[in-house]
Amino acid sequence: MNLHLESYPKGTTGAASSGRRIEHMQVGRRFGMFPQATASQDGVDSQIQVWCSNDYLGMGQNPRVAEAMKAAIDNHGVGSGGSRNIGGTNQFHVLLEAELADLHGKEAALIFASGYTANDGALTVLAGTPKDTIVFSDARNHASIIDGIRHSGAEKYIYRHNDVAHLEELLAAAPADRPKLIAMESVHSMLGDIAPVAEISELASRYGATTYIDEVHAVGMYGPQGAGIAAREGLADKFTVVMGTLGKGYGVMGGYITGPAALIDTVRTLSRSFIFTTSLPPAIAAGALESVRHLRASEAERTALSENARLLHRLLGEAGIPCLSTDSHIVSALVGDSEACRRASEMLLDRHGIYVQSIASPDVPAGEELLRITPSPVHDPKDVENLAHVLGGIWKELDIATASDRHGA
Amino acid sequence: MNLHLESYPKGTTGAASSGRRIEHMQVGRRFGMFPQATASQDGVDSQIQVWCSNDYLGMGQNPRVAEAMKAAIDNHGVGSGGSRNIGGTNQFHVLLEAELADLHGKEAALIFASGYTANDGALTVLAGTPKDTIVFSDARNHASIIDGIRHSGAEKYIYRHNDVAHLEELLAAAPADRPKLIAMESVHSMLGDIAPVAEISELASRYGATTYIDEVHAVGMYGPQGAGIAAREGLADKFTVVMGTLGKGYGVMGGYITGPAALIDTVRTLSRSFIFTTSLPPAIAAGALESVRHLRASEAERTALSENARLLHRLLGEAGIPCLSTDSHIVSALVGDSEACRRASEMLLDRHGIYVQSIASPDVPAGEELLRITPSPVHDPKDVENLAHVLGGIWKELDIATASDRHGA
Repeated sequence: MNLHLESYPKGTTGAASSGRRIEHMQVGRRFGMFPQATASQDGVDSQIQVWCSNDYLGMGQNPRVAEAMKAAIDNHGVGSGGSRNIGGTNQFHVLLEAELADLHGKEAALIFASGYTANDGALTVLAGTPKDTIVFSDARNHASIIDGIRHSGAEKYIYRHNDVAHLEELLAAAPADRPKLIAMESVHSMLGDIAPVAEISELASRYGATTYIDEVHAVGMYGPQGAGIAAREGLADKFTVVMGTLGKGYGVMGGYITGPAALIDTVRTLSRSFIFTTSLPPAIAAGALESVRHLRASEAERTALSENARLLHRLLGEAGIPCLSTDSHIVSALVGDSEACRRASEMLLDRHGIYVQSIASPDVPAGEELLRITPSPVHDPKDVENLAHVLGGIWKELDIATASDRHGA
Repeated sequence: MNLHLESYPKGTTGAASSGRRIEHMQVGRRFGMFPQATASQDGVDSQIQVWCSNDYLGMGQNPRVAEAMKAAIDNHGVGSGGSRNIGGTNQFHVLLEAELADLHGKEAALIFASGYTANDGALTVLAGTPKDTIVFSDARNHASIIDGIRHSGAEKYIYRHNDVAHLEELLAAAPADRPKLIAMESVHSMLGDIAPVAEISELASRYGATTYIDEVHAVGMYGPQGAGIAAREGLADKFTVVMGTLGKGYGVMGGYITGPAALIDTVRTLSRSFIFTTSLPPAIAAGALESVRHLRASEAERTALSENARLLHRLLGEAGIPCLSTDSHIVSALVGDSEACRRASEMLLDRHGIYVQSIASPDVPAGEELLRITPSPVHDPKDVENLAHVLGGIWKELDIATASDRHGA
């Protein structure tokens, strides 16, 4: 064969081995035990506490969700049997879409196999409809948003992350009669900061732009009934499309968009990642439905998440550890060096059984390597304190820049 | 908002309604009852027999697969909690990838959320590695293959469907020193014909081309242990990448590629639809693993599938109904007119409770509208006979061209 390929270095045991890749570690979650888990790597098992999961609310071990999934398997079998338009639509798809539309106050919803395919599939269609649409895209948008816009072939302008003045400058410079689409995330996946949704929606109204807000890291966690940041600000109706996931706060899998019925039907009719895909198994849709319903009714998970996140932000601040933002439950401690970041992750794991994946390219740009910590309602506040304490020690030992170092204090 | 959108016509009851869309019908499968199901549309339920499912072997109601899924939920919870490289790899992913690599006699495997993302994600990387690769793509390749190649930006040439002479012509015309990649399907999704894998692999050897074979409609159903068409012909080792799905023959969901370890690692490292996606829930991976293992050991499902497919092909042939191919279990009866095709599907459903989705653009080109019938091991031979009889009547009533009409006899 002709492909010029490079192998991964072979992993060996021992933290100091340059060949070891924590990201390839198996994380054996046990129902009811999360965030405790059994890590397996190179044939060696160890007990860990997970601090980097996207199961933000612990819904992955919610008994009602588990029961809903098992009941769906018992009643309806294990797979859907087809794509949505060829025999693969079942009652749970229909109920789940109605529930999500209602959650976001939209006319309709459409579910996809993943958040990636939802953004890619929806934006490939929407950014290209009508044909002369100009897209305004946040510079730090997720890969799936970038890919969707790119695949649409639409003309696009990138505005600096959450920079409303820059966005307005670009909107003002574009021809008034061209259709416009603004695409952005509410809670940023890696930075943890929150977009200025009021200002953006105001600009959108003023310039007649359609708005597409990715609430993947917000749905379930923020706003009334977990409807997200736009809803928290009372502005959900100002965003044409609210997009979310069923695989993070809701703990299952799948992605979705909600919006006006005609728009959703256009995506349903044209999106290739929707049309040419086996639909979600009944159990997945049934579990997600139960999870959404649970988090509409229950505030307990959101309250505990917010308390743990606030505590961790405060303690890291006191320890001088620089965080990229204190807006949300995504607590990203900036290391800014790829090797130090990897070492910090290894030290946490090997000495303390604390699993925080080090994040580097392509998830963040070089120089912004970070430890992305995600406290959740199932972490004990004592564990939050321990993590902050341990991390403070590692920061010193590895001589990583503190907040005051970075601010020149 | 600015999008120029068209609404779907509102559905009403009654077969003759021009607004009715059978593809939006809910298909309520019951565990153990498939191919019987409850159809729901416009608030009306009816009992149907499904003849267009991609649950080709009835594995969607295999008790061992269901038990494996439920056990995984009980033990590990409902979601994976993250992407594969950030805390979302569990034992079932690792075991399933090892099983699939072993099934196809390859060094490694990589699973994706769907077949669409497997093809799109893998080919976006592989067609662009190395950068000067020339791709040779079958004219009737699936949307996901087309999208992957397109997204790679690679130079590509389209050869006429399964036309080895045309492929050779294109290979011969390309610079000898440029890396080459041939991408094709073994069993075609809509036509049901089977690619000349021996000739294609021979050409690939001669011209030094890497080969990518999509066995989505073959894995589980053909070859030793269900390893597919290339394996059936003893040629699996001649294809660099064997790609398959866990959502059709295996009855669950997900897609995968298998191939040399270095190639798989390249896709793992670069594929955005792999990296930026929550991994499959433990239950889905566990169910798929059980299904693959079951179909490696059991011939019963393949034997019954093949007998029912052969019977249906023979009876449709006797009734003068033209099929696009008699090679496989995909029995595509050519109607060749969009309105007649829709009517035939409605008549089957309304008069006989037989559900065969009519297939039109974008699944097939205009003029090739068809009824894609998929007999399975869970259909009774008596039902096969009934279907052929009923279809013969509809062919006459709607005056659809017979095989002899088409051949000018």
